[in-house]
Amino acid sequence: MRAGEPPSPETSPAELEIIRLIRRTVEKSPAERVETGIGDDTAVLLPQPGARLLATTDLLVEDVHFRRSWATPFDIGWKAMAVNLSDIAGKGGRPLWALVGLALPAPPDPVDVEALYEGMRQAGAPHGVAIVGGDTSTSPRGWFVNVTLLGEHEGSPRLRSGAKPGDAVAVTGTLGRSAAGLAVLEAGVATRPAVSPEALEAVAAAHLRPTARGAEGRWLGAAGGVHAMMDCSDGLATDLAHLCRDSGVGARVSLDRLPVDPAARDVAGALAADALSWATSGGEDFELLLTCDPASVGALRDGLRRATGTALTVVGEIETCGAGVTFLDAVGKRVMMGPGYEHFRE
Amino acid sequence: MRAGEPPSPETSPAELEIIRLIRRTVEKSPAERVETGIGDDTAVLLPQPGARLLATTDLLVEDVHFRRSWATPFDIGWKAMAVNLSDIAGKGGRPLWALVGLALPAPPDPVDVEALYEGMRQAGAPHGVAIVGGDTSTSPRGWFVNVTLLGEHEGSPRLRSGAKPGDAVAVTGTLGRSAAGLAVLEAGVATRPAVSPEALEAVAAAHLRPTARGAEGRWLGAAGGVHAMMDCSDGLATDLAHLCRDSGVGARVSLDRLPVDPAARDVAGALAADALSWATSGGEDFELLLTCDPASVGALRDGLRRATGTALTVVGEIETCGAGVTFLDAVGKRVMMGPGYEHFRE
Repeated sequence: MRAGEPPSPETSPAELEIIRLIRRTVEKSPAERVETGIGDDTAVLLPQPGARLLATTDLLVEDVHFRRSWATPFDIGWKAMAVNLSDIAGKGGRPLWALVGLALPAPPDPVDVEALYEGMRQAGAPHGVAIVGGDTSTSPRGWFVNVTLLGEHEGSPRLRSGAKPGDAVAVTGTLGRSAAGLAVLEAGVATRPAVSPEALEAVAAAHLRPTARGAEGRWLGAAGGVHAMMDCSDGLATDLAHLCRDSGVGARVSLDRLPVDPAARDVAGALAADALSWATSGGEDFELLLTCDPASVGALRDGLRRATGTALTVVGEIETCGAGVTFLDAVGKRVMMGPGYEHFRE
Repeated sequence: MRAGEPPSPETSPAELEIIRLIRRTVEKSPAERVETGIGDDTAVLLPQPGARLLATTDLLVEDVHFRRSWATPFDIGWKAMAVNLSDIAGKGGRPLWALVGLALPAPPDPVDVEALYEGMRQAGAPHGVAIVGGDTSTSPRGWFVNVTLLGEHEGSPRLRSGAKPGDAVAVTGTLGRSAAGLAVLEAGVATRPAVSPEALEAVAAAHLRPTARGAEGRWLGAAGGVHAMMDCSDGLATDLAHLCRDSGVGARVSLDRLPVDPAARDVAGALAADALSWATSGGEDFELLLTCDPASVGALRDGLRRATGTALTVVGEIETCGAGVTFLDAVGKRVMMGPGYEHFRE
């Protein structure tokens, strides 16, 4: 779910066609020293024998990904960096260098530009990221912020295609917080839901200034038993469906096992909204989604908690059949949950 | 000079302020393993001991950098790749991998998207470039194409800061062709200038589908005697001024030595325009600008011609004083030439 757009009921045939034709066009050229290319969130490149370079790019567009009435320039810069940090975290890599393509209406306000860059810098600094280049242009209308993030991986990056039948499906942290934040921002000041200021602040901050699971990604990426991993940015339903498709498997998720965010639950109660559908389909929580050997769940959960303080929750299992993702309620009945956010994205 | 914008008479204080504050903001964070960071066209990064990674990003914006009434989607994709190839060529590097951030109004036309990617692919393929990732979004208005290009350099990249007093200033190929092409496109079909169809086609193609000097950049980057190098994309006046500022020197350019493009001369004659100011200030010729030991000029010129078929022309000299670039006419009189294109770019 993004600002200004309702969750699409499904990936449209036109969107799928765009993705397929981009891939088909690009793959006409040979790809030299490319381990994972177009079609994944993050490219894995082989500059030197034994060295792996990670590269990802994300574009934030005004009134598509953010509204300037809610998000400050600092927030926009922060988020533009954070979404890329999350892609690198999903590979278990270490981010290093960022390049920024920026278009703003002329004349640019220096205060806005400084705040935007300061947001990018402050989001990246705790992860060790330096901004090393960029290009800045005028825009006839609206803000466009494109961040490309480069990183490294000293081992074998976890891919979306590694899930095996029988694997446990697990997520870090909690789900639904960002969608709750978006709902609060959309409701506006006049109709603030009757929940604690702390819960309101927590969900709004989760939407505007998300935190990538960098340390968690590196720890899980190096841990034994993890078979597939990715960041959960478009919603569990959509991202797990991608993972299943790339792995040629299906998945079953128990709704009553989902770590629905407590503050999101409070907000949903006050707004008569459905926290469970925020958790499955809201998107932008930037948690990590992984599948692992069921025998290693205990060690992964305890180890991750000790190393980073972050919870790991098993929410389902990988199945042999390739029929996508099935959601089950507390008594094992199949429930339809809408998919998360889908653009005509690669 | 870009579509829809006259050359600005000088870099505005607001633009300089934007560049300075971006740099100041970014440099608050330490930059790890960065040889050349923000402020240059291309970052030089040090992923491994002895290995150099080059990274550059360029953003093309509809009605700022191109007009869809002139440029086909193929042209736009081609140019988005070519401007980045030129940055890597200016460092003497070898391009490898591209990532694409693309925003188009919804719903995207698959034919346009395919042509855009095909343009990027065909521009990159002769240079060995593979497109390895990207992000695609809807745009509320207009096309935005951001290409990030990664490459490698096996030696020491030539920088803009290496010019020494007494150096010869030289450029590859010819100048003014792209500005002539823009003038032809702006004049439109109804007022086609009375020159040969071949000249019209040559200048229009130079503007719409420029060719980066990749082989020339690698040859010159490895040749002895070259002290400073960059691509000439914003016009000789602007780019040489950047080079002088970064090197702490000045430069004197003889207008009668400039390799003004013959087709551009024809077009200028027919349109009563000034081919010389196109050559100094038009921009987007994507030739290489270098300074070198005057004793090595002959060897560089002959060697480059043998290796690539491309001419190298000495147009001036580097001076001790840091007063920027002086243009001299045939009798040695100082002439004012407008600067090339300046955005609020980094």
